[in-house]
Amino acid sequence: MSRGRRFDWERLQDFCAQVLQRAGAPPAEAEVVAESLVYADLRGVDSHGVARFPIYVRRLEQGMVATGVKLDVEFDGPVVRVDGKNAYGAVVGMRALEAAVATAKRHGCAVVGVKHSNHFGTCAYYAERAIAQDLVFLAMSNASQTMPPYGGARPFLGTNPLCVAAPAGNEVPFLLDMATSVVSRGKIIVAAQRGEPIPLGWAVDKDGRPTTDPHAALAGAVLPLGGAKGYGIAMFIDILAGVLTGAGFGKYVHNMYENWQQPQNVGHLFIAIDIARFMPVEVFKARMDRYIRDLKSEPTAPGVDEILVPGELEARTARLRRQQGIELPDAVAKELADVGKRYGVRLDDAEWTSMKREA
Amino acid sequence: MSRGRRFDWERLQDFCAQVLQRAGAPPAEAEVVAESLVYADLRGVDSHGVARFPIYVRRLEQGMVATGVKLDVEFDGPVVRVDGKNAYGAVVGMRALEAAVATAKRHGCAVVGVKHSNHFGTCAYYAERAIAQDLVFLAMSNASQTMPPYGGARPFLGTNPLCVAAPAGNEVPFLLDMATSVVSRGKIIVAAQRGEPIPLGWAVDKDGRPTTDPHAALAGAVLPLGGAKGYGIAMFIDILAGVLTGAGFGKYVHNMYENWQQPQNVGHLFIAIDIARFMPVEVFKARMDRYIRDLKSEPTAPGVDEILVPGELEARTARLRRQQGIELPDAVAKELADVGKRYGVRLDDAEWTSMKREA
Repeated sequence: MSRGRRFDWERLQDFCAQVLQRAGAPPAEAEVVAESLVYADLRGVDSHGVARFPIYVRRLEQGMVATGVKLDVEFDGPVVRVDGKNAYGAVVGMRALEAAVATAKRHGCAVVGVKHSNHFGTCAYYAERAIAQDLVFLAMSNASQTMPPYGGARPFLGTNPLCVAAPAGNEVPFLLDMATSVVSRGKIIVAAQRGEPIPLGWAVDKDGRPTTDPHAALAGAVLPLGGAKGYGIAMFIDILAGVLTGAGFGKYVHNMYENWQQPQNVGHLFIAIDIARFMPVEVFKARMDRYIRDLKSEPTAPGVDEILVPGELEARTARLRRQQGIELPDAVAKELADVGKRYGVRLDDAEWTSMKREA
Repeated sequence: MSRGRRFDWERLQDFCAQVLQRAGAPPAEAEVVAESLVYADLRGVDSHGVARFPIYVRRLEQGMVATGVKLDVEFDGPVVRVDGKNAYGAVVGMRALEAAVATAKRHGCAVVGVKHSNHFGTCAYYAERAIAQDLVFLAMSNASQTMPPYGGARPFLGTNPLCVAAPAGNEVPFLLDMATSVVSRGKIIVAAQRGEPIPLGWAVDKDGRPTTDPHAALAGAVLPLGGAKGYGIAMFIDILAGVLTGAGFGKYVHNMYENWQQPQNVGHLFIAIDIARFMPVEVFKARMDRYIRDLKSEPTAPGVDEILVPGELEARTARLRRQQGIELPDAVAKELADVGKRYGVRLDDAEWTSMKREA
């Protein structure tokens, strides 16, 4: 089966940044948004990659996100309050990340609460930068309504992502970045774009019935992972990232695909801990290496080749896609090309060729 | 079916405290351990209640936990490092909680890392105190090996609990306290004590095969919730509570039932955030009330009477059990009575009578 066209990640990023600039975003903002999306594609998290680019551009065109605004960042000891002023989520997230790193290095830890933001892509984008600074990092964000509460019949909670990361020494770093649904809603979007069915148990239709049709699922609701527990996790993220920060929560986080009257008012919460306050960083990394080696040398269940650490598969995929290009489904590539045309930016220029590496 | 004997919670707590004192614990330590266990029974979390009391006493008798030691607590801005010196987990946990509250009130947030601790009961015990001080609170602890990694065949991770709590105004506070397994291992212990089968999907036997026999499950492994995601959550708790704090992690957290040579070296991590740094506490509580009311007024799925907030059922159970006594399975009551006999403390004195309330 032909799965689509392949693109060079750097040129694909340039394509996105060019379009955003021509649509009115300052170069630095265009860069960070483009980078955060392509970063997700590189890691194989296609649901959070350039498949979202057309809606990102449309939000800008419709005046639903702000560009070139000065964010409010209030430092209060180890606590930081960020008002994202409705800028792109990645722009806000990166500013919050910088504040988290600086604050944790200075005070030993940081709690950064963010309001008035937008969809900020994959949390791993921020987490990878934090662990490179020898921090342990937690990131969470709320999102618009896609999951019913436990015992409920219709969407109330977002698939609020939870991300936790820690550096290692010689081993792969720990980088968990998960939606609190059984699967990410984005995976269902990708299935719909590819015209593939989804497994039973991922979602219900608009009447609460189980479904394998991705379109019916998108009209209905994805389910929280692990029943009541996943519901509780999605809820605490809404409380920390939304209720506490002053952002929207529950039905007050607006859908970027459907609501063209109000800003999303997404909230994020970052927690960063300076490892050096607990032990020398090298000792911590040696302990992480031992932990990961212990884990990976455990006997595997029948049919399993290898025990993987969260983030390991994504790191391998990124290495591969840097070398061999990022394959996009035809439907996604066509949408991107159409967006590009509106701004005179050619997607074709981003296409991967085996010659390119020698050029 | 007769399910056991009923006990008055205050007298049951006195019973446990008396026994611990006669076994050598200072009164203040005996009180906090007894209170933390009975607190779990009150909330219906029987798996973490006095069913654990016999092993707690045995650990003390065998010199496997320390009593009357002075804990090391190092304050370093918003970061606190606690060396539990192998005291009872509840004693260490309560000291860490006090440090978290004081530090968050002073600096705006607190990260408290704890090493050299023991099984510290239910996280909700600490969380309830934190939210009473208008803090948002996260607690996690690692535990000895009971769950295989995703793709693994034998226990490597503990059912490392995660707890998040936030106060509300007029509504029930949010209090999520969950094991990262499909169910808590303690629930399987309770099923074994009651001679009841467990549902398929909770656990595997020692060869990795699915089982409904609680004894086979206890010899095997409970499964992480939600597959790879629950595995990732259990792992990050081990990293934060264990690798980072200097406590044991993975196989270096020792089993309190099986290892009589080494201290458990359990690790905990508490994160506390002072709500007042983000908004007036009354505003936060009004936002929580609105969130909870919105949620509870959602339409329910067929067959569901009411949408519950995490902690709501437990709060109701506690109210009921305070009034009507705590029912313990005969096997648990017999074990407790036997422990009491060794120290001349009568469990019968804790039995609930309808007359008692008038006394």
